[in-house]
Amino acid sequence: MEKIAVLGAGSWGTALSLVLADNEHDVRLWTHNQVQAESINATRENKKYLPNVVFPKNVKVYHDMQEAIRDVSSVVIVIPTKAIREVCQQLANVLENKITLIHATKGIEPGSLKRVSEMIAEEMPRHLYNDIVVLSGPSHAEEVGARQPTTLTSSSVSLSEAKKIQDLFINENFRVYTSPDVIGVELGGALKNIIALGAGISDGLGYGDNAKAALMTRGLAEIARLGTKMGANPLTFIGLSGVGDLIVTCTSVHSRNWRAGNLLGKGNKLDDVLEQMGMVVEGVRTTKAAYEFARKQHIDMPITAGIYQILFKQKNSKDMVDQLMNRDRRHEMEDLSHILTNRYSI
Amino acid sequence: MEKIAVLGAGSWGTALSLVLADNEHDVRLWTHNQVQAESINATRENKKYLPNVVFPKNVKVYHDMQEAIRDVSSVVIVIPTKAIREVCQQLANVLENKITLIHATKGIEPGSLKRVSEMIAEEMPRHLYNDIVVLSGPSHAEEVGARQPTTLTSSSVSLSEAKKIQDLFINENFRVYTSPDVIGVELGGALKNIIALGAGISDGLGYGDNAKAALMTRGLAEIARLGTKMGANPLTFIGLSGVGDLIVTCTSVHSRNWRAGNLLGKGNKLDDVLEQMGMVVEGVRTTKAAYEFARKQHIDMPITAGIYQILFKQKNSKDMVDQLMNRDRRHEMEDLSHILTNRYSI
Repeated sequence: MEKIAVLGAGSWGTALSLVLADNEHDVRLWTHNQVQAESINATRENKKYLPNVVFPKNVKVYHDMQEAIRDVSSVVIVIPTKAIREVCQQLANVLENKITLIHATKGIEPGSLKRVSEMIAEEMPRHLYNDIVVLSGPSHAEEVGARQPTTLTSSSVSLSEAKKIQDLFINENFRVYTSPDVIGVELGGALKNIIALGAGISDGLGYGDNAKAALMTRGLAEIARLGTKMGANPLTFIGLSGVGDLIVTCTSVHSRNWRAGNLLGKGNKLDDVLEQMGMVVEGVRTTKAAYEFARKQHIDMPITAGIYQILFKQKNSKDMVDQLMNRDRRHEMEDLSHILTNRYSI
Repeated sequence: MEKIAVLGAGSWGTALSLVLADNEHDVRLWTHNQVQAESINATRENKKYLPNVVFPKNVKVYHDMQEAIRDVSSVVIVIPTKAIREVCQQLANVLENKITLIHATKGIEPGSLKRVSEMIAEEMPRHLYNDIVVLSGPSHAEEVGARQPTTLTSSSVSLSEAKKIQDLFINENFRVYTSPDVIGVELGGALKNIIALGAGISDGLGYGDNAKAALMTRGLAEIARLGTKMGANPLTFIGLSGVGDLIVTCTSVHSRNWRAGNLLGKGNKLDDVLEQMGMVVEGVRTTKAAYEFARKQHIDMPITAGIYQILFKQKNSKDMVDQLMNRDRRHEMEDLSHILTNRYSI
């Protein structure tokens, strides 16, 4: 039994708190929103982000970060990418002992094009934590809250840290694998949101499962190409945090990136969609970051470029999809082998 | 404009005939069932296998094979695996000129463990055809019939033959890529049906999208491991005829393998399920073939073995899934790297 703080009481932070609670840890869930903290402590339910799931006794919700992290051995960061730096600064200010640092946020910072663990490392003094561990994989919070079977990857450059996190979270419903490829695990989780927007657009336009499967497959090749260029092991993209997460995000109505894309495909404007969602849609920022990186590095990413045009240049969704379907005839193996040419010989 | 015979008037043979007809070829669709031939010619609709789609004038349906294949330049074989040898013998008996030979059947022969192109090659005299071309990918016949966007892979050891078939089929709704990896393209299409049965079982048991994505991802690694051992290029399994087809088959109610699995997961017996389906469920035979091959070659395929136990040994579905979720803790990269160790160095 350990004392663990979870920073961020969105749907995923809440679901992960419940897994840790099921494993009999002493869980301290922190939120920046005082009203939310009081509401959850009073009702024992996170009505806005994970309704109809009762909080066990061993989860307490805090608004004061210093209080939340007192004496904890581990901290799990689960907040939107755009708030990562600010929350890490807060954490660094109040932390007194060395901790195990885990994050479960999927995104890339536009402009800097940094991964979440890189942003964390820039904000947190190195003596305050061991190696950062990333927890990622195909996992709708709603299903984890319902104790449905779920698998994830725990990744760190240090295998012992990755295994420590595997031990904290693993139980009969929540299966955790380890991986040494932090870059690939982070990028798989982040970049798949671009393709999820595309899958939603395709469905919103009324296209079928054949079109969506094609988009997902070609999209996977595209994000693997980009990810490998950014230093990932291409094999990671065919694992749980790659294709697994892609599948769950593109084919389920639980996914907010898919839902945002779906509304776009039906002809809504981006600003209206984001307002209607009322939750952070990480894929929008990630598309911008990936598009910028690909342009700088001359990486061929037609799907990402198309989605970028729809999101930020008011291009018509249907025209973009039709254009993708009617590109030059290609030899599929050429495209796929590009993924590996960076580091692997065939 | 070419004269092309399509052998097999199931849903996929019918849909491919319509694509060729859209491209203004003279299409001769053959069926072994005389009543079906007469019904389609009279009603201009394949009521049983592809209802509500009108046959264009340039598709004629034949019951006499000799008549169907007269003067054709290409023959497309789209019949269940178990009838491949018999139909090829018939074809060899009546064929007078050398043809381009294409097949679009997804399965493996139990016992011999042969791929469809190998079965064809054993039955057809070599002077009667150029290299065999495989057409495979994520493609529900219903959506192709509705002219929804669809992508496929045309594969042959001879690139010129693969390109010839690309030219025959490609149009604005039907995008065809080429690949030289015949073995991988055939195995991807066949083996994914095993995982589709598993995905249906998981859904039938009431498990969620997280569990299904995990099963599909671990299943993909498993079939890639087997496929590579059988001589495929592992990259093919992350292409359209691999993960693309896996996605479309596991996540759509159009898929008969998924539907069969779903009925099994709900507690029905295999014989009752197959009777109720009234169509060939290739995944059942393929599971048996893959299980036998894996056992002989000592390949670790826990998902395939589990599905084999459910299908043929009356094991309880829920027990099997729970057992898969609670195997030893693993390092994901070890599992994935097995895929490549056969022929590729990391």
